[in-house]
Amino acid sequence: MGASSASASHSKSSRKVVSEKPHITELPITWTNWWKHVDWLNVYFIIMIPIMGCYWAWFTPLQTKTAIWSVIYYFNTGIGITAGYHRLWAHTSYSATLPLKIYLAAVGAGAVEGSIRWWARGHRAHHRYTDTDKDPYSVRKGLLYSHIGWMVMKQNPKRIGRTDITDLNEDPVVLWQHKHYIPVVTFMSLIFPMLVAGLGWGDWKGGFIYAGILRIFFVQQATFCVNSLAHWLGDQPFDDRNSPRDHVLTALVTLGEGYHNFHHEFPSDYRNAIEWFQYDPTKWSIWVWKQLGLAYDLKQFKSNEIEKGRLQQMQKKLDRVRAKLDWGIPLEQLPVIEFEDFQEQARNGKALIAVAGVIHDVSDFIKDHPGGRAIINSGIGKDATAMFNGGVYNHSNAAHNLLSTMRVGVIRGGCEVEIWKQAQRENKDISFVND
Amino acid sequence: MGASSASASHSKSSRKVVSEKPHITELPITWTNWWKHVDWLNVYFIIMIPIMGCYWAWFTPLQTKTAIWSVIYYFNTGIGITAGYHRLWAHTSYSATLPLKIYLAAVGAGAVEGSIRWWARGHRAHHRYTDTDKDPYSVRKGLLYSHIGWMVMKQNPKRIGRTDITDLNEDPVVLWQHKHYIPVVTFMSLIFPMLVAGLGWGDWKGGFIYAGILRIFFVQQATFCVNSLAHWLGDQPFDDRNSPRDHVLTALVTLGEGYHNFHHEFPSDYRNAIEWFQYDPTKWSIWVWKQLGLAYDLKQFKSNEIEKGRLQQMQKKLDRVRAKLDWGIPLEQLPVIEFEDFQEQARNGKALIAVAGVIHDVSDFIKDHPGGRAIINSGIGKDATAMFNGGVYNHSNAAHNLLSTMRVGVIRGGCEVEIWKQAQRENKDISFVND
Ligand code: HEM
Ligand code: HEM
Ligand SMILES: [Fe+2]
Ligand SMILES: [Fe+2]
Ligand SMILES: [Fe+2]
Ligand SMILES: [Fe+2]
Repeated sequence: MGASSASASHSKSSRKVVSEKPHITELPITWTNWWKHVDWLNVYFIIMIPIMGCYWAWFTPLQTKTAIWSVIYYFNTGIGITAGYHRLWAHTSYSATLPLKIYLAAVGAGAVEGSIRWWARGHRAHHRYTDTDKDPYSVRKGLLYSHIGWMVMKQNPKRIGRTDITDLNEDPVVLWQHKHYIPVVTFMSLIFPMLVAGLGWGDWKGGFIYAGILRIFFVQQATFCVNSLAHWLGDQPFDDRNSPRDHVLTALVTLGEGYHNFHHEFPSDYRNAIEWFQYDPTKWSIWVWKQLGLAYDLKQFKSNEIEKGRLQQMQKKLDRVRAKLDWGIPLEQLPVIEFEDFQEQARNGKALIAVAGVIHDVSDFIKDHPGGRAIINSGIGKDATAMFNGGVYNHSNAAHNLLSTMRVGVIRGGCEVEIWKQAQRENKDISFVND
Repeated sequence: MGASSASASHSKSSRKVVSEKPHITELPITWTNWWKHVDWLNVYFIIMIPIMGCYWAWFTPLQTKTAIWSVIYYFNTGIGITAGYHRLWAHTSYSATLPLKIYLAAVGAGAVEGSIRWWARGHRAHHRYTDTDKDPYSVRKGLLYSHIGWMVMKQNPKRIGRTDITDLNEDPVVLWQHKHYIPVVTFMSLIFPMLVAGLGWGDWKGGFIYAGILRIFFVQQATFCVNSLAHWLGDQPFDDRNSPRDHVLTALVTLGEGYHNFHHEFPSDYRNAIEWFQYDPTKWSIWVWKQLGLAYDLKQFKSNEIEKGRLQQMQKKLDRVRAKLDWGIPLEQLPVIEFEDFQEQARNGKALIAVAGVIHDVSDFIKDHPGGRAIINSGIGKDATAMFNGGVYNHSNAAHNLLSTMRVGVIRGGCEVEIWKQAQRENKDISFVND
């Protein structure tokens, strides 16, 4: 998110330069050309003016009413970005009636982050090309770059990924705001908050400094966090191939845009937080507008789809842990041994036990066997499948795992078959139909 | 765990009764015979004496020294049960030198829960036959039954599962304690704590009441919790087929025996808590004894085995969730459709898209497609496998899941093959070697 008011027109002018000589961003930064790499207009808007605002604030007493108004207007302009620029226009996660659109376009402009059209185009590229070079604010280029660097340094306009914005080009509110961006932004960001404080309680200067300049600074920094913090801090419950993350801190700073791993996975969901206890005032606002008839067609992914995503990510994590553990020698790597040889070796003193067609060397375990030495010794040289699986004792899962680490061979033909053959040869009574 | 001092000899006497007429536990409880079902001797030891202790305490001022001594002796007798009776003798999870064995047999007796031999036999049956009718304190018979009911009501000695206690029958300390159980228990539970308080600071009566009777009551109730609370409250990170559970509360009450799901899965591990931050003073004691040369051969399951168990249980939970979710119609239940028919239907207005050999009906989704209508429309009637998987946009995991819910058919022969054949028929340029 974000960029100063000048960026929209700025990219046009730079295109001309490209046709004549290489764009400045294609040259390396040196001691003599670094100042050409800096986008001074944006530096002025995002950094210099706030610093001057702080200086002026030093000489301007803050009145209680102005303070309250600044906070109120902070939330309104913030919502303009999150519920308007982001969830309505960039993601069309719901539809808005004309009055709501006008309100959102107005207060959104008051946050001074560029026109809806410019902002949503960049944001769609960010979603479509997340973490790649075509992502305008890729966190892979550094946390500071994703937060503010991408606006402070000049960008190669050819680099940003292309996206479909036909819907925005058909929206009269979007077009009107884009066309009259400079007067709109000047009015909404500075003049309007000053007017309210001035006409309301006579604090013209305070309205300008606090509800204007400093409030802009805080709204900008907060929403910039969605590009930096939300791609850097927290969990990845839905997909960990890319950088987006969920964190309550980011949500608190960004009016609820902090469940960003969810958001990148389900971008057209009007919610960012799906649990009732998570902080998402943007979602709450949209929901209230719906009750008032101002918003409609709120899009929501089915919980079945969301739970599938969560499950697959957990499965991925489990599989990673599984791959790191020792599960015993794979059966196909074990030598194949005749049942008679197995018995022979056991008679000659090797502590071998057959369970489910696999031969196990239990020598080192006999003294530690929780069921006692005598009982495990009774299985040596035998097919102990039935004993092990409940005949004598129904061993725990842990015992089965332990068993698999003791594998030394596989019995040819599978174990039960051998036992039967053996029994027939020895004319023993066994539940097997002779033919 | 647990049982009064009389239980060991008591079960012998009841065996005689069995040979003459049906054991009382085989008869239903009625208004006229209920008192025969009650084990009055145990009731006296576990319930009546503590009540009398409370009454006497009313008239016995509690001195600070006696209070401190009671707590110290509480921990010593508790450790006698947890580190001695339980982890050393029932589970042989480590080996102890003679002095340590004598100490544990002595303070263990002071907890008044029967002889080591009687206790460990029942406990081995509890592990071997957990939750079944052969489990002496099965929680399946009720929380109260597993806590105290199994001692307060007479038991059918034939019911308890058989276990191997040859190792205990070879241990002179175990045999000596079993043989002289009555004098040992009387001395360790009442006389010794009274002597310390009496000879130490002259509080004979307080030593008897507080460090003796009331301390016995608290130790008994605490250790009984391993049979009740530990099978009832908490998580099951290793196996949820049986009742054992992990809970920090149970651990706090039982000197660390609260990680009981772990313990039932890895009973011969000298630890119950495997994380450093979990409360297991019994483990700490054993570890200190090892440093002092009093204990040796501490058994420990490899962390590989423990993590395997944890992983399998998590996998089980995931599989349960997976089974409840809708993953779309299974491929084998879909009708098989010729590629030409698919194209024909799409031409006639059905919004069908083929991806990876499967036909999807996207009619209801076109207007909601986050990538725009135009782009998804461009895939209708085509094999959009490549476009969907990165050619145009590398769809998220969520998009793949959503896709599978739109399945309506399978293309005969797999999709790519059809496309190639098609292209050859139409003489189109395609990267396929003609022969
Ligand atoms: C072959 C390798 C064997 C392994 C790795 C093994 C492992 C174990 C383990 C880990 C336990 C502790 C309780 C549990 O986790 O379920 C156990 C208990 C037991 N095992 Fe085995 N066992 C083996 C063979 C046998 C055989 C062949 C028999 C019987 C013929 C047997 C009989 C028992 C019994 C009766 C117990 C119960 C001990 C008790 O709690 O009283 N085991 N075994
Ligand atoms: C056939 C069923 C389709 C489904 C279920 C589907 C689903 C989705 C979903 C859920 C998204 C949101 C972002 C994401 O989750 O990855 C998305 C975005 C996108 N889809 Fe599809 N899609 C389908 C077909 C197509 C086709 C055929 C194309 C191209 C020919 C396409 C192109 C795109 C593009 C370019 C985006 C990026 C939107 C953006 O963030 O700007 N989709 N699709
Ligand atoms: Fe993002
Ligand atoms: Fe977004
Ligand atoms: Fe238990
Ligand atoms: Fe145990």
